[in-house]
Amino acid sequence: MKALEDKIISEGKVLPGNVLKVNGFLNHRLDVPFIKEMGKEIARLFEGCGVNKILTIETSGIPIAFAASEEMSVPVIFAKKHKTKNISDDVYSVEIDSFTHGNTYTAVVDKAFLNEGDKILIVDDFLAIGNAVKGLIKMISSANAETVGVAVAIEKGFQNGGDRLREQGIRVEALALIDSMDDSTVTFRK
Amino acid sequence: MKALEDKIISEGKVLPGNVLKVNGFLNHRLDVPFIKEMGKEIARLFEGCGVNKILTIETSGIPIAFAASEEMSVPVIFAKKHKTKNISDDVYSVEIDSFTHGNTYTAVVDKAFLNEGDKILIVDDFLAIGNAVKGLIKMISSANAETVGVAVAIEKGFQNGGDRLREQGIRVEALALIDSMDDSTVTFRK
Repeated sequence: MKALEDKIISEGKVLPGNVLKVNGFLNHRLDVPFIKEMGKEIARLFEGCGVNKILTIETSGIPIAFAASEEMSVPVIFAKKHKTKNISDDVYSVEIDSFTHGNTYTAVVDKAFLNEGDKILIVDDFLAIGNAVKGLIKMISSANAETVGVAVAIEKGFQNGGDRLREQGIRVEALALIDSMDDSTVTFRK
Repeated sequence: MKALEDKIISEGKVLPGNVLKVNGFLNHRLDVPFIKEMGKEIARLFEGCGVNKILTIETSGIPIAFAASEEMSVPVIFAKKHKTKNISDDVYSVEIDSFTHGNTYTAVVDKAFLNEGDKILIVDDFLAIGNAVKGLIKMISSANAETVGVAVAIEKGFQNGGDRLREQGIRVEALALIDSMDDSTVTFRK
């Protein structure tokens, strides 16, 4: 999505530790009309795939999932992050190692909201190592539901999470796929 | 908002400890068309008030803030919750006691996103004791900006946070204002 690549170049900031800061439009201040355009693009990419639910994870996946949902007319479920491992039987749960935050958390989804036969699109803001997405796929499998695909705003291709998922046969679409970045240049995959 | 009162009665669950669970449409599974209706109602209530930004706090305030933003054509800023007190100089920060979670966290907003003269509408899913809203008002004051008002989906009137804010001259609008609730009955304020 050319408009997103342009926005990353004009507004994003590359920080040490492979961090791309897009606080100005995606994950602190929300540029709502722009996020709606991203939602439209996700809907276009997965049109006709029979998606009946969008699954994301708090926090920054929620706006883009909401925008995609508006276009696709399906509900959004967001997985919640728990600090404790003290989880009830009523939820699907999975432990996720956060590369960004250097910790491990438990993501949970109420069993009522993921059902056998669901065709689920995972939506998130970033895909890097892919641990969060892998966790969500695990929860979808636990519910005997199907992962139709993964749509993210920004994939950091050089951290390989997306390509590893593609090798497993999972459809992964990134609206902007970064092959390399440093403080002067961001290079997108053709 | 009659439709929200009806939905609380038909889908909400009252749990011990004054908890109203509305996971099915507002803060785990998102009923997007319904949240968009709530956004429209918030826009209607604050029409002509000169709001130029919406401020909310992660996580569950984000969808309704996003929906209100679509109608009001203003950006959303969401305050982030930090575990540490180790906060940079580039942010406004405030400590908030969470009644729901029985802990204290620090909410932060990048100074770039709150500016002198801003006219800000605070949007959140729930208002009970009002500690989160009070914290956001404090940050708005720190930025020499103005709190135009507070719009929440559900106010638990019996926990008095909203009325205390109203006594201080702050305009607080709740789409559903609960005066009392127990496991068999939810009573709304007329």
